[in-house]
This record gives sequence, structure tokens and C-alpha cells, in this order.
Amino acid sequence: MTEINVAIVGACGYGGCGSVEILAFHPYAKIVALVDQEGVGKPYSSIYPHLKGFCDMVILPPEFDSIKERVDVVFFATPDGVGQTYAAYWIKKGARVIDFSGDFRFQALDQYKEYAKRIGKPEVHSAPELLKDAVYGLAELHREEIMKAKVVGNPGCFAVSCILGLAPALASNLIHLDRIILDAKTGVSGAGKRPNPTFHYPHRYDNMNAYRIAMHQHVLEIESEYSLLARQEIRVTFTPHVIPLTRGILSTIYGSLKDRPGAEEVVALYKEFYKGCAFVRIAGPEEAQQSSYVRGTNFCNLWLNVDQRTNTLIVVSHIDNLMKGQAGNAVQNMNVMFGLSESTGLMRPSQYP
Amino acid sequence: MTEINVAIVGACGYGGCGSVEILAFHPYAKIVALVDQEGVGKPYSSIYPHLKGFCDMVILPPEFDSIKERVDVVFFATPDGVGQTYAAYWIKKGARVIDFSGDFRFQALDQYKEYAKRIGKPEVHSAPELLKDAVYGLAELHREEIMKAKVVGNPGCFAVSCILGLAPALASNLIHLDRIILDAKTGVSGAGKRPNPTFHYPHRYDNMNAYRIAMHQHVLEIESEYSLLARQEIRVTFTPHVIPLTRGILSTIYGSLKDRPGAEEVVALYKEFYKGCAFVRIAGPEEAQQSSYVRGTNFCNLWLNVDQRTNTLIVVSHIDNLMKGQAGNAVQNMNVMFGLSESTGLMRPSQYP
Amino acid sequence: MTEINVAIVGACGYGGCGSVEILAFHPYAKIVALVDQEGVGKPYSSIYPHLKGFCDMVILPPEFDSIKERVDVVFFATPDGVGQTYAAYWIKKGARVIDFSGDFRFQALDQYKEYAKRIGKPEVHSAPELLKDAVYGLAELHREEIMKAKVVGNPGCFAVSCILGLAPALASNLIHLDRIILDAKTGVSGAGKRPNPTFHYPHRYDNMNAYRIAMHQHVLEIESEYSLLARQEIRVTFTPHVIPLTRGILSTIYGSLKDRPGAEEVVALYKEFYKGCAFVRIAGPEEAQQSSYVRGTNFCNLWLNVDQRTNTLIVVSHIDNLMKGQAGNAVQNMNVMFGLSESTGLMRPSQYP
Amino acid sequence: MTEINVAIVGACGYGGCGSVEILAFHPYAKIVALVDQEGVGKPYSSIYPHLKGFCDMVILPPEFDSIKERVDVVFFATPDGVGQTYAAYWIKKGARVIDFSGDFRFQALDQYKEYAKRIGKPEVHSAPELLKDAVYGLAELHREEIMKAKVVGNPGCFAVSCILGLAPALASNLIHLDRIILDAKTGVSGAGKRPNPTFHYPHRYDNMNAYRIAMHQHVLEIESEYSLLARQEIRVTFTPHVIPLTRGILSTIYGSLKDRPGAEEVVALYKEFYKGCAFVRIAGPEEAQQSSYVRGTNFCNLWLNVDQRTNTLIVVSHIDNLMKGQAGNAVQNMNVMFGLSESTGLMRPSQYP
Repeated sequence: MTEINVAIVGACGYGGCGSVEILAFHPYAKIVALVDQEGVGKPYSSIYPHLKGFCDMVILPPEFDSIKERVDVVFFATPDGVGQTYAAYWIKKGARVIDFSGDFRFQALDQYKEYAKRIGKPEVHSAPELLKDAVYGLAELHREEIMKAKVVGNPGCFAVSCILGLAPALASNLIHLDRIILDAKTGVSGAGKRPNPTFHYPHRYDNMNAYRIAMHQHVLEIESEYSLLARQEIRVTFTPHVIPLTRGILSTIYGSLKDRPGAEEVVALYKEFYKGCAFVRIAGPEEAQQSSYVRGTNFCNLWLNVDQRTNTLIVVSHIDNLMKGQAGNAVQNMNVMFGLSESTGLMRPSQYP
Repeated sequence: MTEINVAIVGACGYGGCGSVEILAFHPYAKIVALVDQEGVGKPYSSIYPHLKGFCDMVILPPEFDSIKERVDVVFFATPDGVGQTYAAYWIKKGARVIDFSGDFRFQALDQYKEYAKRIGKPEVHSAPELLKDAVYGLAELHREEIMKAKVVGNPGCFAVSCILGLAPALASNLIHLDRIILDAKTGVSGAGKRPNPTFHYPHRYDNMNAYRIAMHQHVLEIESEYSLLARQEIRVTFTPHVIPLTRGILSTIYGSLKDRPGAEEVVALYKEFYKGCAFVRIAGPEEAQQSSYVRGTNFCNLWLNVDQRTNTLIVVSHIDNLMKGQAGNAVQNMNVMFGLSESTGLMRPSQYP
Repeated sequence: MTEINVAIVGACGYGGCGSVEILAFHPYAKIVALVDQEGVGKPYSSIYPHLKGFCDMVILPPEFDSIKERVDVVFFATPDGVGQTYAAYWIKKGARVIDFSGDFRFQALDQYKEYAKRIGKPEVHSAPELLKDAVYGLAELHREEIMKAKVVGNPGCFAVSCILGLAPALASNLIHLDRIILDAKTGVSGAGKRPNPTFHYPHRYDNMNAYRIAMHQHVLEIESEYSLLARQEIRVTFTPHVIPLTRGILSTIYGSLKDRPGAEEVVALYKEFYKGCAFVRIAGPEEAQQSSYVRGTNFCNLWLNVDQRTNTLIVVSHIDNLMKGQAGNAVQNMNVMFGLSESTGLMRPSQYP
Repeated sequence: MTEINVAIVGACGYGGCGSVEILAFHPYAKIVALVDQEGVGKPYSSIYPHLKGFCDMVILPPEFDSIKERVDVVFFATPDGVGQTYAAYWIKKGARVIDFSGDFRFQALDQYKEYAKRIGKPEVHSAPELLKDAVYGLAELHREEIMKAKVVGNPGCFAVSCILGLAPALASNLIHLDRIILDAKTGVSGAGKRPNPTFHYPHRYDNMNAYRIAMHQHVLEIESEYSLLARQEIRVTFTPHVIPLTRGILSTIYGSLKDRPGAEEVVALYKEFYKGCAFVRIAGPEEAQQSSYVRGTNFCNLWLNVDQRTNTLIVVSHIDNLMKGQAGNAVQNMNVMFGLSESTGLMRPSQYP
């Protein structure tokens, strides 16, 4: 098996750190460059001291293309706008690209513009020619395309939980498409590393809130994927909440059932849909789930329920927002792109408690 | 103003403690008995040392009717089944009763039986003759009846947040009645004082989960009050979640709008509905709310939003589950019952941070 | 009783907010100005929404001396360096000053310079002439001087807990003076309101650390007060730690006993020393203390223990760093300065849980 | 390399769970029996659902000696008193024993009796004949003896942090032996899995306290090891505190220095002492440490400081109480006992944040 040489741009954010934590133990990957604006020239472990002895590579500046090693894949664990600026360059040099932002999550320019508007960025894209071949990086739905992709757009954390949570129901025409409610709860790490009054410890402690109601940017990729699955345009109601824990997304997904299936029927259908998917675990009504079951892992646990009184499908979807919602999923994409088993280097349970 | 003599049965639980914390500073109330099975003969502050110097009364056993002071009102801050056993006795002695459990939240015996079934109790009621005159203790909706009530059923904490959150919309025929979704998040204190593997600190830390999906007992009183407001039988989908904080309920309420009102219109309608209600604060879309704004207080903050894309009313309802969701609301009921301003002794902001 | 007119400079920090929360309910104080650089022209409750309806005054800019009301006392709830710049001006106008920073905690200029050095500020003082009459604002030790003081230096939070914790032992010559160890643990709010990588929620969660070992600035005022009490120069070893909670300081104080007193003897001695002090509560070995007993209050709870095996006095001193460690203590000082009972407006227990 | 067959008795406690999490990925170990009184006959993952797919073995009852596989080592992850009852039986059958309780931490019966007294157990030992050959399971100090040991007493979590933190200073005669102060802070998981009012989430949240002052049982093994190192009887002052986080011990250790060494000198001495020890990481004054650096790992991070003003050595010792303080250290012992590198299967960093 050839080694996969990985460069991580934006290495000093949470996405970069998560990638390093995984790749340092990946049997076939080798980190050849850690790149950031912060900490250039210093060992990576001076930024993340918990990695002392595990990753002491020196951080390179954004202009790192003089490194000697071949680069097989670049992880852009960077804010919106960075990946689209540099992706073409690296592709030309023969590398493939996995971008953590919204830069390559949409194939249509219009969709990207709508996204850019929501996050207050200019409604232009620096590499529109790459968009149409960019692949939405959710292996459970797009494995074949990811295998061949030059550019993969790693999904938003909320999107992963919501899309995996409802895909089988949509693909099977189980629910009414005009009444989907997504109520999502995230730990604070989803907001990234930059300090902010909203995520200052004393403010956040013993505190919770909804935010960006009817305005969150992840709803666009959710609707895009939902529409593909249902072969029909879908709009959803999506409400994110911040919860005082560090890691974890719990999305509670409500769908109004068309027929009156029992929960076992739904469970069977989900299990069939996700056959062969290493990281999706299906639980029936009697197997209540908790975010600690997926914390620190790449799993998505789906707890399936049917409210008989209102004939509503209720899916509780659990992921770790920094793993399946970010770095873990990126490595899963890399595995698929380079022909490895998708779980290579990722098959670890959480620690309890 | 005559003094109101209060006996608190179940004084050593969280509901009792919350009541003592308020009543010790209430200008017209006087605690005449603290009653519990635990700690009999010991000063109350030996159970709750933070009250040392504030409430050092000796705890009395359940048979406390020999106390010399007149008892004007008995708070049954007790588990289901206790209040119904003793209420008639105290009413006969001339006292009025505020019960914290589900014992007196329903006027119809059938409803109570359905409730009892949900919580795994025998489907009988010890004082069925009191039920029909029992009043649901939410002053914002039943002020007149509470004024005259002998027995008040203090509502469930989730119910308070969900009922106040949607009452104006239901009373005004704003939403479709068959698609109401209630997604509720509660801090851990809602589970009470008794230790339990589920609420053991290491288990609960950095952990969240949904529970009792389609089975929670509070849904019954929510539906009962919703139906009254809408003058029509309503069934709702209600999903509770446990969140790692101590105090606070955030209920996100989704209603499918019939017409296309703007948010300002909804705000105006809610403000009109709650005119004169000291503890309900209405916020428009631009005034995002957080649970810290109500922590430790008797307020219910309602953050009103309209998702134009899906024409959905989204109400985020915040209360402190131990205050407006329990002891604070009980004292508010007492104030109303005894002709005081409803906010007497309760008008305090939270401490921040 | 005349009303006390209070201006709060630095109103938008935690110290200002804590002062407002107390003074809004103080029977004899009236806030006449809320002053800050942030939020000028906006209602105070737009910065602190939990105070909506309780304090909606408009925030004034630093040049606020044109207000019509008489100013009896100015609270400088400001960073080091601000109070010393403006104090003289307000004193000349007839006001008295309570400063929350280190500006007026030392009467000797040399001590201040040493302090300024530790916090990286220029070693000059803008109002050296005020220093010699400035009073260290710990009413338990300096009540008489505070009554007459023009300028009071409100103590550092760690200092309050450590000084109150050992004062009786030092005054009574109980311990060896060369072996005092102070091990202090603080909640995160002690670091103030400004966001910072160190106090970013995901970083701080499930994390603790010691910091500024042998370098913390509060050690100077501790040593200064200890030396006064012992009538001898004392140096101590002081180690602060940050703990993942919001409010609370727990200082564990170790003194090597000279004789072999029993714990009861020490308890009696402490009770005698603090006779008449409303906010110091003494607990013997069998009355274990927790930070929740003082959370949100102005109390200092001292848990006294003697380790017979090593003949060591171990005092566990609990305060709320934002109350007795800051705003509560400032109001206590104000009460003393204006001839009120020291507990006026401050005698509240915490809420539990 | 021969496989090591491991039986874990007390598999359903935190110590058992931690052992399973490690051993499931250990290259040379194989779990052959998971034994407990709880959950017999059920898959292990029904007790610990985060291990679903990783460890689904069926739990065996305490009488499990009929299993077919050879047992090379038994982990008694059990409360005090269990290991001493069954150890001899398993040794006779050819197995070796690692006990997590205090049963085999002392070689002298008198020491054990003193320990038993402190924890309120009968002052008798069921296997006194095993005591004298039992080895204190801290490989950094007793590697040679552990290699040959039949029975290893895995140390108390506080003891690990305090002993490793001061061993080099004691061995080098650096400090006065009569003034050692150990101030230890632990996360809540140290108290184990059993629910308890003290560790009920709402009680523990935003709360901290000292406990068992001058009475904690771990002080005995600390003194025992300290005395060995210093070749002299030592008594220490030890104060444990509970802190609201899940994992982590931070012990702040104060020693009064005899001479006036600089911090670099102390650092050099510690590095020399721990040469070849995979899990002890030494940091000088400028490398501040945090508990997150060791969370989830088997490392002990020692942050060395000298307070020049009082000539005090201040060592801040960080471990994860469930790893180096329990299960991780047990596996390290197993590695040493069976001739493996001590870090086999244990060399993992923590996840951040």
C-alpha cells in the first residue's frame, strides 16, 4: 500500500488539530506539512501541548509549496474562502483537495452565492470551474463520486447529523416533504477556536440558547441533499441551539409519516439503507442513545422512534461535531478517495465517563 | 395585610427548598411548618446549609397537624400520590392546597388515570371528589379560578414553558392544530434530588440525550390546556431532552402558520395576550434570548420568530424549571389565591454570570 | 435616612454588573450614573438583558460629571489605572471613592510600585497623595478607618479569602510565620468579562490548571495585611488555580501550629475574633463546607481543621469571588462608609441547587 | 510474542471499563473473561453502549473459573476486600494478580490495618501470607519487583500523582521532610460509578469542596513510599478536593527547599530520575501545564517551580485519575509483568478540546 502524503492547511484550528490527532496514528497516511498563519516556525506541540511527543513538526507558512515531499491530498481546514483560492493550484500539482468550509459543498454557483450571502461573504467564488466537479463529502451517500473526486467539500457538522438522520426516510418516500422540522443542539466547540463573548466560559456556563433561527447557513446543504434524495425540491425548518458541553451534536428530526409504519419497519429500512456503512449505527425505540456514546468517535448513532399518537417519525441523530462532523469525516473521505476501507485509522470507541 | 401561614410538606426536596428560599423573604407569608420524612427533628439548615441563619426551623414529621399556628395554605411539594391523600383533611381544617405533583392537574378522572398510567402509578385517585374543583395553577390562563380555588395543581415544568409559549397563537387561531411540535430541553435539576445513575455527575457531564419520546407524562396537561385554548381536541408531538446544566428549560415550539403574518404582528398579539402578566416577557426576532436571562427567576421569556421560507411560527420559551416551573409558580399561585399582587416576593432578576 | 447617590464607572464589566444587581434593591442607595466606554447611550439592560425591567438606565460616557444628581460615592469597577486618574477629581467634588482595582490597596508608594510591576504596568501612580489615606477595604479588619475613608481600595478576590481565613490565627500568634502555604482555587469569572483563549469555553471545560506560580499580584496585599496582623514582616507561598466553575473561590490555607491546640479551641478563637461580623461564618471540623453554600452571596465561610498528625492548621475559606470578593464587599464598604449596618441590602442566601 | 489472557473482575465499574477500553486495542492482550455481579449473562456493551461493536462479550458471574481459556492475569477492579479473598486461588491456578483496591498496597499487615480502619473496614486481611510479596504497582519506582510479582497492588489515584510528583526531590534530599504539604484536586469520576447525593449532578455543578481533611486513606501509601525514598519516616499533610470536572487529578505539592537550587537544576534532576520512564513528562516553570494535556492518557505531567521568595519547591502534578491513576497504570503494570515495553497499547494522546 502506498503512503498517502497529507498537507493540512489551517492546522492550528480545531479542524486541523482533529485531523492531526487521527492522521498521526493512521497506518497509511503521513503528514508532510502543517500549515498556518499562526505559529509559523514553531513546533506544532507548542500550539497543542497535548500532542507533545506525538506531533512536533514545525508549522509552515501558507507559502509552503517548496516542501520536498510529494503532496497527495491537501486538507483545507480553513475558514470559508481560503480553499477556493488555493485548490486549483494544488490540483494542478497533482494533489487532491478536501475542504472543510462551505467552499465546495455546492455544485451550482447560485447555491454557493446563496450560502455566501447567509454568512456575510461576497457572493463570488474564486474557482467556479471546480464547483461542478466538486463532490459533497458524505461517503454514506456519495461514495462512488468521492472515490474519483479531485475536490471534496466536507459537510457542515449540523448537515451531517441531519442528512444521515433522514436520508433513508426520504429515499423511501416515508414522510410528507413539506413539514420537516430539524431541531439541532450543538456543543460549543462547533464555533471553533477563536474567543468570543458568546463562548466565554462564564457566559456559556449553565446557559443555553437557540440562534440564527431560520437563517443558519447549513440549512442550504441539508435541503440540497434532501432534495436529491427525495427527487423533489424540499424546504425545511432548521433551528440550531448551543448547549453547554464541548463536543456533540444531537439533532431531533421530525417527519410526518405518510402511512402508519411501525418502528421495527423503519428500523429495518434504515438498516438496509446503511448496509456496509461502518459509521452509522441504528437503534430502535428501546435503545435510547446519548451523546457520550459517540463522543470522540466518527460514529453517527441514529435512534429511531415513531410517535403513534401523531404518526410522526422522530429520529434522534448523534454525532461528535469535531469527528463525524468535521475531521473524522474528512479522513473517512480521504480513505475512500485513496481506495482504503473507509474506517481505516478511525475505528475507535469513546472513553467513558 | 393579614399574614399567610404556610406549611410545606416535602420540604426537603428541591421544590420545598425553592419554596423556602422565596417565602423566607416574602413580606406577607410566614412558614409555620416544614414537613418531611427525612431529617425530622433537625434544623432545616442541616439539610440545606446554604440557608443557615435564614431558615433554621426544625423539620416536622408528616403528622404535624398538632402545630399551634393556623395553617392557611399547604404546599405539597411531594411526589405524585401524597397530595391527593392529605388534601381533603387540610381543606376541612380550613386550609387551601397547592400541590406540586400531577395529583390535581386534571379535572377529569379519566385524564388523571391516563396520567397515572404514564408514570407507572395505580390508576386510582384518593380524592376524586376534589378533582372537579381543582384548578390548573397557571395564573396567566386561570387567574380568576385560582383566586377562589381550594386546591391548585401546580403545573409540570415542561408544561409551563410549552403552554405559555403557544397560548396566544392557539387562542388566536394562528396555526394548524395537527402539526404542533414541541422540542424541550431541560437542565438536570428537573429530575429532582434523588441520586440516580442517569444523573450521576460523571455520566451526565459532557452528555445530552432525548428521553421518553412520545411517552412523557407532561404532554397530557399540555394537550389539555392547548385544547381549551383552541376549543378543539389537540394532540402534539413532544420530545424532552436532558442537557448538562442545572437550571433551565428551553422549549422550541413549532407551529405551521395558517396565514402569513409577520413577526411584528405575532409579537403584538402575544403582548396583548399577556398584558398585565408580570412574569411573561415577549421578545421579537431581533432580541435573542438565553436561559441565563431567566435563571433563578420566575420569568418566562418568549422569543418569537417566523420562518418565512416554511411559514412556521417558532417560539423559544425560556423558564427556570425550579422557579416558574415549580416553586416560584407555586408562590405566584399563593399570591393570587390570597389577593396579593402576583409578583409579591418574586420580583428578582438573576445573577450574572 | 438620607439616600446615597452612587455612580458606577466601569458599569459594563462583571464588577459593575454585580454592583447594579445589589444596588437596584438596596433600600438606601440610588444609582445615579452608569458609566462605561462600551454601550454609551444604550440602556444598561441591552448589555445585561437579565436586568430588563430592573435597570434600564442609559449608559453614560466617562465624561459624565454634568449629571444633575449629587454623587455621594463613585464605584470605580475599572481596570488598574483608571481609579487613580479620576479619584481626586471626584473627591474634590465631595464624593467618596471605592476602587475595585489595585490602585488604592496600598498605602506605601513602594508597595504599589511592586504591585504595578507584577501586573506589567508602569511603576508610577497618578495620585500618590491619596495613597497614604486610602484604606484597605476589608471591613472585618478596618471598619473604623473605612467609616472615615475618602478612598477605599476594594481588595483582590483571592486576598479576601486568604486574609479572612488566617487573620485570627495571625493575630493570636497561633502559627509559625515562615511556613504559610496558600493554595487557592477560583472559578473562571474571576478573570473578568473579556474573551480570551484561556477562558474560551471548549478550552476551559473539563480542564484545570495552576498559574502565575510565585508571581501572582494578590500575594502582596495578602502579605501586607498578614504582616499588620502579626506585627512582623511575613512572606507566604501562594498558588492560584483555575477551576471549571463560574463563581467561587476556595482557598486552602496551611499554617504550622506552634502549640497543640484542639480544633474547638481554634473555632472559639475565630468566633471571638469575628464577633459582630455579619458575613463571616465559622464552621468546625464536623461541618464540611462547599462553595455552593456561599455562591451568589456576600458570605465568607471558614471551615477550620487541625491535622493532629502534622500539627497543621488547615483553614478552608469559601467566598463568591464576585460578591465578597468584589461587588458585594464594595457595597459592604459603602454601607460602613455611610453609617449603615454593614449587611444592608446584602443579606441574601444562595439558591440551591 | 505469546498472548496474555486477561480476566477482569469488577468489569462493570469505571476501573473495569477503562481496562476494557485499553485492552480491546492491546496488541498482545486478550480479554478472556469479564466478571461482575451486575449484568451477568448480558453483553458488556449493554452496560457500556459506547463499546458496542468493540466489546460485546457476555458478562460472567463471580464463579467464572470454569472458562476454557488459560488465565494469565486477573485484574481485580473491585472494591476493597474482594481481591484479598480470591487472589490466592488464582495464583495457585498459575495466574498473576493486579488489584485496584488497597488490598495489596502494603507489605506490612499493620499498615494494612491502619488503612482498613480509615475506610471503615474490619482490620483483618484474608490473605496476609500474600502481603509480604505484594508489590506496590508504580513501575517508575518498582519496575524490577513488578516484573517478578505474583500480586501487584495498583496504587490509589491521588497517591500516583503525589508520589511521582515528589519522588526525585525526596531521593535527592532536596527538601525538609517535616513540612510537606499536598493539596490535591480531583475530578468526580474518582468517586466511582455508584450514585450518591454528593455526586448528583445538580449538587456537584458549579460546586467545589475539600473533604476528609487529615483523614484520607491514600495518605498512608504516600507516606509509605515517601519514607522509602527518603530512607526515613515521613508524615505529610494531605488535603483532597472535589472539582466539577469528570477526569483529572491536579496535585500541588509544596516542599521547603534545604539549599537554594534554581528551577533548571530541579528540572535536570527530575529528568535524570525519570529517564526511561515513558509516561512521566517534565516541564520547567515556563511550560505551564493543564489537566487537558493528560486527559484520557496514561501520562503524568510534572510542572516544576521554585518560589524564590520563600524557597519553596512547588510541583504541579497532573494525571488522569482513571488512566495513570487506575486502569492505564494497571495495564502498564501488566506490560512490565509480562516483559513488554511498558507503553504497549497505552501510547495515545488526549483529544482536544
